[in-house]
Amino acid sequence: MIKNQLYQQLRSQVYDIIENEAYQTKFSKSFDKFLIVLILLNVSAVIAESVDVWYFPNKHLFDAFEQFSIVIFSGEYLLRLWAIVEKDKDKHPELPNWKRRLQWLKSPGAIIDFISIAPAFLNYFVTVDLRFLRVLRLFRLLKLTRYFAAMRILLIVLHKEKESFKAVIFILIILIVTASSGIYVVENQAQPEVFESIPKSMWWAVVTLTTVGYGDVIPVTNAGKFLGAVITILGVGLAALPAGILASGLASELEQRREILEQKFREMLLDNDDMHLIKDSYKIDKVRRELGLNKEQADEVILQLLREKEYEHRLAEIDKKNYCPHCGEHL
Amino acid sequence: MIKNQLYQQLRSQVYDIIENEAYQTKFSKSFDKFLIVLILLNVSAVIAESVDVWYFPNKHLFDAFEQFSIVIFSGEYLLRLWAIVEKDKDKHPELPNWKRRLQWLKSPGAIIDFISIAPAFLNYFVTVDLRFLRVLRLFRLLKLTRYFAAMRILLIVLHKEKESFKAVIFILIILIVTASSGIYVVENQAQPEVFESIPKSMWWAVVTLTTVGYGDVIPVTNAGKFLGAVITILGVGLAALPAGILASGLASELEQRREILEQKFREMLLDNDDMHLIKDSYKIDKVRRELGLNKEQADEVILQLLREKEYEHRLAEIDKKNYCPHCGEHL
Amino acid sequence: MIKNQLYQQLRSQVYDIIENEAYQTKFSKSFDKFLIVLILLNVSAVIAESVDVWYFPNKHLFDAFEQFSIVIFSGEYLLRLWAIVEKDKDKHPELPNWKRRLQWLKSPGAIIDFISIAPAFLNYFVTVDLRFLRVLRLFRLLKLTRYFAAMRILLIVLHKEKESFKAVIFILIILIVTASSGIYVVENQAQPEVFESIPKSMWWAVVTLTTVGYGDVIPVTNAGKFLGAVITILGVGLAALPAGILASGLASELEQRREILEQKFREMLLDNDDMHLIKDSYKIDKVRRELGLNKEQADEVILQLLREKEYEHRLAEIDKKNYCPHCGEHL
Amino acid sequence: MIKNQLYQQLRSQVYDIIENEAYQTKFSKSFDKFLIVLILLNVSAVIAESVDVWYFPNKHLFDAFEQFSIVIFSGEYLLRLWAIVEKDKDKHPELPNWKRRLQWLKSPGAIIDFISIAPAFLNYFVTVDLRFLRVLRLFRLLKLTRYFAAMRILLIVLHKEKESFKAVIFILIILIVTASSGIYVVENQAQPEVFESIPKSMWWAVVTLTTVGYGDVIPVTNAGKFLGAVITILGVGLAALPAGILASGLASELEQRREILEQKFREMLLDNDDMHLIKDSYKIDKVRRELGLNKEQADEVILQLLREKEYEHRLAEIDKKNYCPHCGEHL
Repeated sequence: MIKNQLYQQLRSQVYDIIENEAYQTKFSKSFDKFLIVLILLNVSAVIAESVDVWYFPNKHLFDAFEQFSIVIFSGEYLLRLWAIVEKDKDKHPELPNWKRRLQWLKSPGAIIDFISIAPAFLNYFVTVDLRFLRVLRLFRLLKLTRYFAAMRILLIVLHKEKESFKAVIFILIILIVTASSGIYVVENQAQPEVFESIPKSMWWAVVTLTTVGYGDVIPVTNAGKFLGAVITILGVGLAALPAGILASGLASELEQRREILEQKFREMLLDNDDMHLIKDSYKIDKVRRELGLNKEQADEVILQLLREKEYEHRLAEIDKKNYCPHCGEHL
Repeated sequence: MIKNQLYQQLRSQVYDIIENEAYQTKFSKSFDKFLIVLILLNVSAVIAESVDVWYFPNKHLFDAFEQFSIVIFSGEYLLRLWAIVEKDKDKHPELPNWKRRLQWLKSPGAIIDFISIAPAFLNYFVTVDLRFLRVLRLFRLLKLTRYFAAMRILLIVLHKEKESFKAVIFILIILIVTASSGIYVVENQAQPEVFESIPKSMWWAVVTLTTVGYGDVIPVTNAGKFLGAVITILGVGLAALPAGILASGLASELEQRREILEQKFREMLLDNDDMHLIKDSYKIDKVRRELGLNKEQADEVILQLLREKEYEHRLAEIDKKNYCPHCGEHL
Repeated sequence: MIKNQLYQQLRSQVYDIIENEAYQTKFSKSFDKFLIVLILLNVSAVIAESVDVWYFPNKHLFDAFEQFSIVIFSGEYLLRLWAIVEKDKDKHPELPNWKRRLQWLKSPGAIIDFISIAPAFLNYFVTVDLRFLRVLRLFRLLKLTRYFAAMRILLIVLHKEKESFKAVIFILIILIVTASSGIYVVENQAQPEVFESIPKSMWWAVVTLTTVGYGDVIPVTNAGKFLGAVITILGVGLAALPAGILASGLASELEQRREILEQKFREMLLDNDDMHLIKDSYKIDKVRRELGLNKEQADEVILQLLREKEYEHRLAEIDKKNYCPHCGEHL
Repeated sequence: MIKNQLYQQLRSQVYDIIENEAYQTKFSKSFDKFLIVLILLNVSAVIAESVDVWYFPNKHLFDAFEQFSIVIFSGEYLLRLWAIVEKDKDKHPELPNWKRRLQWLKSPGAIIDFISIAPAFLNYFVTVDLRFLRVLRLFRLLKLTRYFAAMRILLIVLHKEKESFKAVIFILIILIVTASSGIYVVENQAQPEVFESIPKSMWWAVVTLTTVGYGDVIPVTNAGKFLGAVITILGVGLAALPAGILASGLASELEQRREILEQKFREMLLDNDDMHLIKDSYKIDKVRRELGLNKEQADEVILQLLREKEYEHRLAEIDKKNYCPHCGEHL
């Protein structure tokens, strides 16, 4: 039984180090940093291997590094799978361990982790084009998402604004299809090679609507140039739309989080109406972190609250003076 | 008379299935999905037909599919025209059927439906260039607008911000005219072919101001390059303006709808001051849908309301404590 | 004396027609439309004259049209100068006429009007390049600003955000100077012709930073490509900044105007607390126009006000019920 | 002792002129203007020196100007270092002079000042490529930051939104690495020269994702074009994102400053409840300046306050009428 307890204690310890974000010791931070560096080195290796003069003389080094990385990432994956049962153990104690593990296996983070190591083992079963296989290792880059709060907020905004993005993609498809069909009808006779069919004309449409404009395919007839000009002007109006939606979505998301933070601070003040509480940095830090806001943003909210508080206080003082201190009647 | 009643019941049923958005059964949803797939297949067919190696071997298949589509779309059009008299029957029972039908015929949705099928019948009356006729079938793509809430919101924003867009188009025209005239005066002598006249120079102006920059027409003199640089810098400032207006318009439109939703929820709470009502998912769903908001946006509003409610409740409790429970006087 | 009175009446009439925006009769509207069409025809003429095959066969027509336009625009200018003394006559009756005229002469609108006609008379004094002179007539396009409310709002936003634009231009200059100097140092030896000096390299810097990318000047060394990539990424971040500032400035300007409109409507309601007043379309229209808002924006504000009013009303009713109707005590 | 006093007075005077922004005399303004002009002339000189036909005939002039500039900038640097001890002398009188100086030496402004003069002295110690050395003088451009309030606000926004920018850069790196790897796998066989390795393919990825599109490197295979199109569409969504974040950050920063200004004006009104105070232009000017807002923005806030005040006043008057003036009871 003591053995079992030790086992559980070890698992809990491992969970705290590799998964629990609230747990921030020197060791858990170093562990995160080591993984971040390893991921970046892996990506650099993939890029460097594509350069023949770098790869061939150091083939064994690159291969050894890949072996090492696979061992580490596989170990990390297994450790996470093993320790994840400690998650929310107090909240849902009835959930069996295999269900917790299955839940984790289906989470986006776990899937990214899996894809990061899977291609390396693929070679044992089927013969795959080596170059393609190597590039697949770039998926490891996505493992970094875990360590960036702003990245997660951006993904949430993308999710929230998905209706708007659908509309934009829908318009974009309409524009691309219309543009390529129009230019195909107009330019097909003048440049039968370049604008051979609608699918071929789509290359021009995409390159133009996104304002990239390589210049390899250009309308030459007057009608084509006129149509091209109209399409370009419409395209420009659309090109920056997704970025605009994302930017304003990001702004309103941060605004909302700041408001929730303010609300929570106000509630803290209700329980205990003195400003010392709000200066309690540990509590503030915890709330702030949950909302993914950085220190400066939290400080701004607190400053604003303090300013309001003082203003209300002064208003109350002035109000008091307007009443008779003896009978309490309004003067 | 019973026959008439059956007829009306059938018409009402058809109306619910193909037009009434509040009516959401399995069958009406399948009907919508079938039409969406058919539209997408039609667009794909138009694109595929332009590729000779795909079209000529399968000519009869493409033609049969077009025949089939026309039958379906024509049937859909006639059914809508027939059943539309059921719309708002309770609100305006005095309106005659032919007026309802005329009203519908003039609505944007009906016009799109008409243009989607009209070209197919055009062939019987006049001989038109077949390639051009085929491309006209792309209008069917616009039929999809009916099924995207976000798309409709975008159109509303476009309508609301039309004043701003007019201003932008006005500036754009000024810039294009000025840029092409300027470059014509400056570059005409160095490149008499390319900058032959102002209309010809407009191609350069559009390609530059929209930052596409194909590179087929470029100023070569120092004066031309200087003018080109100035125009480009101005153009860049303008290129993303429509997208910016659209994005911020979209953001404020959604904000406004969220506020209306909040107001409506508050009103619901007034009639019956317990939170159970607001959890009544059917009512909420109906209001939410009318405003074109998705589930997550509605949930956010409700969450915010609940949070406020609780805060007010706690404030009131604290306020109560400040009064003597016996005489009701302020302590 | 009667003659003098008639003279003043005529001048007041002319002022109302050509300058007073609050005065909107059929005739004054037609007058505006006539001028708008004339301006557009003038611009079209300038563009058409640059096409030799259009100009030379119809030289006398073009010349006659120019003569006609000059007469009209000169007449308009003189009429405005004559009638402007009627402006704000009630507010500042002490101002002498010549002062009012001088004030008008220095206003932006009058300067645009002057530049629109001045070049035509320039020919009598000095010999100017005819082509250049013709293009100067494009200034007449700016006369249209008078007729677009949204255009004026855009100019106001430009004025309000001028600090931000200064900052953007300052950064842009820093970027252009730094980019062209950097690429000059790096690429000068590989392409001594193209990157001959910093001023020559600026063409590349502008074309790249604005993302136009003609492709006529491209770095070829590895160092040049690396520097070019870094500059491009920075440039992209900056390119859309002015548009973003303008768009958000426009949004907040319209928001502010909507708030002022709301405030004014509230004040109207204070004087006479029934909703009929707010439906008084003449008063509303006047306020709305002064703020440059369109009908739909005003309607939205009114709708919002009505909704609030009703909510408050219902709140008050509920509040009443909570008090004993006999003793007035809280229940 | 009198000598010491005179010395301190002189130092205080120098501090007021060259550092203290609140101190605005004719002389201190002229001093600022002189430095701004000198900086701009320096930058122009660097640019002009790169043009051989300008530099070689006037070599001695350019060299003399550089000598002169170095003397001035070195003098300015030393004066600032000497006088900086006067800063916040009342607030922290206990801080020794060397600590104040060290603090200043580590401030961004002082570092820019140092870099502006350092390269000129570098030549005495080591032999550096002259062309590179000259270009380093462009750092003097950054000295202008000190004189632009909007520039400082932009830097603050950049600092506040740094989390979002990190996320954008992270996505950009993922996109560039993924795009270049993908195109390398797909196009390497068709164009082994151009897409030789992933690092070489990155040039294409950057040029495409930023929508510059020079056209020197273009995918030619169908798979490459398809991949290119997908990447381009994604890139366009991202290209304007930093600008959008910056623009909305700038807007909310200015909004926040306007609110603080409003709050401060309200506080001024509390102490002395008459509107004359707020018209006290000196106090307003001081507050406004500290917040980096311009006159028009402050005026707008004041106007809004006055409008609200009047509305409240009228509300109160109406409220009074609803009470019996004799018994004070509600009617």
